Amino acid sequence: MAGNTFGKKFKVTTFGESHGEAIGGIIDGCPAGIELDFESIRKEMQRRKPGQSSIVTQRKEEDEIKFLSGIFEGKTTGTPIGFVIENTNQKSQDYSDIKDTYRPSHADFVYEKKYGFRDYRGGGRSSARETASRVVAGAIAKQVIPNIKITAFVSSVGEIFIDKPYQDLDFSKIKSNAVRCPDEAIAQKMEAYIKEIKKQGDTIGGTITCVIQNVPIGLGEPVFDKLHAELGKAMLSINAVKGFEYGSGFCGAKMKGSEHNDLFNEDGTTKTNLSGGIQGGISNGMDIYFRVAFKPVATLIQKQEVLTNDGKIIAQQGKGRHDPCVVPRAVPIVEAMVALVLTDFYI
Amino acid sequence: MAGNTFGKKFKVTTFGESHGEAIGGIIDGCPAGIELDFESIRKEMQRRKPGQSSIVTQRKEEDEIKFLSGIFEGKTTGTPIGFVIENTNQKSQDYSDIKDTYRPSHADFVYEKKYGFRDYRGGGRSSARETASRVVAGAIAKQVIPNIKITAFVSSVGEIFIDKPYQDLDFSKIKSNAVRCPDEAIAQKMEAYIKEIKKQGDTIGGTITCVIQNVPIGLGEPVFDKLHAELGKAMLSINAVKGFEYGSGFCGAKMKGSEHNDLFNEDGTTKTNLSGGIQGGISNGMDIYFRVAFKPVATLIQKQEVLTNDGKIIAQQGKGRHDPCVVPRAVPIVEAMVALVLTDFYI
Amino acid sequence: MAGNTFGKKFKVTTFGESHGEAIGGIIDGCPAGIELDFESIRKEMQRRKPGQSSIVTQRKEEDEIKFLSGIFEGKTTGTPIGFVIENTNQKSQDYSDIKDTYRPSHADFVYEKKYGFRDYRGGGRSSARETASRVVAGAIAKQVIPNIKITAFVSSVGEIFIDKPYQDLDFSKIKSNAVRCPDEAIAQKMEAYIKEIKKQGDTIGGTITCVIQNVPIGLGEPVFDKLHAELGKAMLSINAVKGFEYGSGFCGAKMKGSEHNDLFNEDGTTKTNLSGGIQGGISNGMDIYFRVAFKPVATLIQKQEVLTNDGKIIAQQGKGRHDPCVVPRAVPIVEAMVALVLTDFYI
Amino acid sequence: MAGNTFGKKFKVTTFGESHGEAIGGIIDGCPAGIELDFESIRKEMQRRKPGQSSIVTQRKEEDEIKFLSGIFEGKTTGTPIGFVIENTNQKSQDYSDIKDTYRPSHADFVYEKKYGFRDYRGGGRSSARETASRVVAGAIAKQVIPNIKITAFVSSVGEIFIDKPYQDLDFSKIKSNAVRCPDEAIAQKMEAYIKEIKKQGDTIGGTITCVIQNVPIGLGEPVFDKLHAELGKAMLSINAVKGFEYGSGFCGAKMKGSEHNDLFNEDGTTKTNLSGGIQGGISNGMDIYFRVAFKPVATLIQKQEVLTNDGKIIAQQGKGRHDPCVVPRAVPIVEAMVALVLTDFYI
Repeated sequence: MAGNTFGKKFKVTTFGESHGEAIGGIIDGCPAGIELDFESIRKEMQRRKPGQSSIVTQRKEEDEIKFLSGIFEGKTTGTPIGFVIENTNQKSQDYSDIKDTYRPSHADFVYEKKYGFRDYRGGGRSSARETASRVVAGAIAKQVIPNIKITAFVSSVGEIFIDKPYQDLDFSKIKSNAVRCPDEAIAQKMEAYIKEIKKQGDTIGGTITCVIQNVPIGLGEPVFDKLHAELGKAMLSINAVKGFEYGSGFCGAKMKGSEHNDLFNEDGTTKTNLSGGIQGGISNGMDIYFRVAFKPVATLIQKQEVLTNDGKIIAQQGKGRHDPCVVPRAVPIVEAMVALVLTDFYI
Repeated sequence: MAGNTFGKKFKVTTFGESHGEAIGGIIDGCPAGIELDFESIRKEMQRRKPGQSSIVTQRKEEDEIKFLSGIFEGKTTGTPIGFVIENTNQKSQDYSDIKDTYRPSHADFVYEKKYGFRDYRGGGRSSARETASRVVAGAIAKQVIPNIKITAFVSSVGEIFIDKPYQDLDFSKIKSNAVRCPDEAIAQKMEAYIKEIKKQGDTIGGTITCVIQNVPIGLGEPVFDKLHAELGKAMLSINAVKGFEYGSGFCGAKMKGSEHNDLFNEDGTTKTNLSGGIQGGISNGMDIYFRVAFKPVATLIQKQEVLTNDGKIIAQQGKGRHDPCVVPRAVPIVEAMVALVLTDFYI
Repeated sequence: MAGNTFGKKFKVTTFGESHGEAIGGIIDGCPAGIELDFESIRKEMQRRKPGQSSIVTQRKEEDEIKFLSGIFEGKTTGTPIGFVIENTNQKSQDYSDIKDTYRPSHADFVYEKKYGFRDYRGGGRSSARETASRVVAGAIAKQVIPNIKITAFVSSVGEIFIDKPYQDLDFSKIKSNAVRCPDEAIAQKMEAYIKEIKKQGDTIGGTITCVIQNVPIGLGEPVFDKLHAELGKAMLSINAVKGFEYGSGFCGAKMKGSEHNDLFNEDGTTKTNLSGGIQGGISNGMDIYFRVAFKPVATLIQKQEVLTNDGKIIAQQGKGRHDPCVVPRAVPIVEAMVALVLTDFYI
Repeated sequence: MAGNTFGKKFKVTTFGESHGEAIGGIIDGCPAGIELDFESIRKEMQRRKPGQSSIVTQRKEEDEIKFLSGIFEGKTTGTPIGFVIENTNQKSQDYSDIKDTYRPSHADFVYEKKYGFRDYRGGGRSSARETASRVVAGAIAKQVIPNIKITAFVSSVGEIFIDKPYQDLDFSKIKSNAVRCPDEAIAQKMEAYIKEIKKQGDTIGGTITCVIQNVPIGLGEPVFDKLHAELGKAMLSINAVKGFEYGSGFCGAKMKGSEHNDLFNEDGTTKTNLSGGIQGGISNGMDIYFRVAFKPVATLIQKQEVLTNDGKIIAQQGKGRHDPCVVPRAVPIVEAMVALVLTDFYI
């Protein structure tokens, strides 16, 4: 069953494996007449791109986007936007060691069982390489809803976390550091910790917090396509995500109703916002905020037990240039998926 | 945009407001030839039904399901199954007090803004009354996938929680107590606490844990319709849910890769299961387990500030027969939604 | 695979067998705030209802519609509209003679092969009884697009046909006769012929022409969901339909481009309209018109060979109260499906 | 609203304008493990390609397909198949003359009204250039259902038509002539006539007949997604199509039930096949056959009135290299769309 399309009205379909010819996608349903800012699309791609700092993978991906259709004289035409990003250095590598083995906590095993065989080069379709297509689509979606402000940032790495509410943070600082954490002191600790982890050939998990501001009232379609249900699905569809909570989240489960209810102001805004900007699955005009948990990357630069396809356990040395911590690079991916969800409800 | 259908192949569409004529739904895509066990459908409805114990609402809902089509001589025919549940005591109540007011943390305000006006009787479409239709559909779905075992239970109420892994619990105890908690000592504490909360006219949140056993390898459709992404959406579509985590969840975000990776056994099972039975969005044959956070019910039997539709804040006394804690009754709803997700991938 | 939903935004899902408890449906995505004219819904149902004249079946169907949700104080609420129509006299009949036989050119055989067994009472799901639900949904859709005028009429019965372009017809005459043909002289001939056919225990095919006026420019979504492609699918989904042509249709295939092209007027209208109001799959503001072919009803009041489910050919006497010619009663069904297609593109 | 995806399980999404960078598409849901015969894909493309004979356009399109994903070691992997076909000679032309004008019976006018502006180079998205992507997808679909035999051929050009039932034709002769007509005498007449029309700078319509053999019983999903309804939609989505009829079609509307019913043989086959291989929307195992009407191409190599975008009627000389008759080249497109429909129901 086809599972590579996201959205109903602003429909994004992606294709591509990490080590195939190219990745790309089709955006169908983009409104006509939007004057595209290609520079901002490029910037979003740049944020996702590997090799931007010492704490992320040093792989080089050129990530040059070729738009093939749906745009004329700089504006969207209302017809599908096809785009392609070549996989420039996919051929140089040697995969003989992973061809016949299933790495722990990778998708190797399930892909082979589900489909009968697999493209064993890198992660194939299960690689986060695919998210580059999402960032392209999200960057265009952001231009469809320019008034809505989407801000994601790293809120924890391992046990290190920001201990302030988002209202007390200066979002302009997010881009000041490689971790993409708006609290500079915490960012320094996170960075040092990630470097330490990297030195060990290990990896570490983390969380991303996302705040959506200036949302119009009324987005979301109960009872199944609630706004937070679609946001949750969008986040959980990103590689390595293990959890999603919005508003009060798991803490809300410990609270009393008398503490949790958001009392109204006379203008329809609320005094508190434990609801997280959504009531009954519909945006209420307050800030939407949520938190996403990412597990540590499964590829270690260590010796590890793997399963062979003839049922033996052997030790294998992990190698390559992988991220010790995925959350800094996942920040633009989270924002892109949020943009897709909101645009789909908005248009 | 229509948002009342769940699933692509086993498609469930529901209708109905809490205080309209009836609620119900259509199941389209149910395989033909399934000999339905109506008694087990009735039992699932019974588990969801109000008034079963002193810790849940004392409202009476007869919840008699009329199946109108798609079943012949006790078996599904492959044609759509239409069903209706009458709202038997919807007319007796007086809604004049909430007609012109928006209750805090209810959907009153957003429904009125989104649709221009609202059915103000009870929660209307935003009421959890709608979940009765989901339980009917889920009970049928369970019979499509009889070998998969779905077990949900209450794992926390307020600050009281089960502090053991699910493997150490005796699931047969879940039905031994009104809270639906498999740890009887904890269940007693939870029950006492809920009674206390009820006495205060207050409400309390909680969490449900769900374990899915005997899952075939291969369910889930990357990259967007990953198994856990659909489970997450399904859970987040349930009233009052604020968060979802599966496998290691938010804890996984604190871990190192060397701790988190699930090493294989020679038969393809894994020694640990921090992944939660899903790799790359596809079931790997291990147990799937996840946790869902429910906020406290917003309706309090207390005086509370509400907003009037002409922009004034007034105090209003909450009344009626509402649940002090929603999680015990949400247990069969969680299971029903899981059954819908799995059946949709399975058939 | 589920196939009982029509539309993407104005989504109509129907259920029900001819001789089950009830038929009905859910309309999801109907805009909020539409003040429903229930009398006009009833009238549409009346037009489709059997027993209205001597040339249609004398079966009695009360066809009382119960709306169960989605309507409050006479207006649509934006939530799904559930409705049910009971099958009032389904139990009185005896089906022992058709239980084990497959009637020629009925769906008995394919239903049994596809689903393993079948609801043999009447046509089950394949009966045109199901179209009553479409007429309900279409009658509501018409109220969503009140400015668009949809007019269907019988344009041929057997070899008798209207030999004028629709522009020369007086649509107000359609309801003046039992055949629903706007040319009264032709209508008389058709009526006499149908009575003759009925006397023979035979049936006869016919065509319906439909004209859609006052259509806004821009409806239709290339390249697959072209306006005429959706209209065609809608028509072909109606029982007994064998063909669809719009604008010049099959005659257009005999013409030269220099004859067929519709030259523009200065205001963007065209001098001729062989295109049938649609260019490249998008409405151009001119009248849309199309023609639908209906085969003769397969149930004859004659002795006929049938196949038994153990592989024998036996003679069987057809009986019951069936339409000798289906097209007069199909007129409101054609209009209903057109309303569904247009509303889905319009909203 | 997005309209560029066909199918639910075997989902094909296309993109591309006639004079943009490239066209292409994504096939999502193709089963894994199919050893692709690339030569047969190339051959299908060759059949659709312009410039193959003196009766079709002399435009050159290289139509080299680049597969970018979803295929590994020659086999489908179960992940989406992305492909691209460059528009090699799109830049050489001058469009200044059509930039500000709307040609009669083209989509220029409606595209500009619907989207606010248009890609005026050639037909843009409304060009039949897009069907090249359909042929790629259809050629792959054919390999998913290799046992089903799909044969389309030209059955009429203008007033010249084959006057035999398809059973009396030798399908092996279809490729013997440029018109793709299995009756060689008729083919010669058609070819001579098309050359004559071409000389006049005019164009001519025609019909294609398609026969589908060896279809398994049970394809099609009532009540809306009936097999013939999906075939009809597929055909009507092809450029220039004005009508679709299957089995007895419009002739069936003139017949009596006693003539039209297909009596059974003891093995479940039928003695006649006026039904056209489909009962109640489900294939019955007999041959499926249908006929599609194509209007004459709107682009004439003559002087013709056009509308300017400032509301004036001017004369304009048509030029370029267009098909005098589109049906020969549409043969592989019809087959491709049939393959998409059948595969979507089959898998």
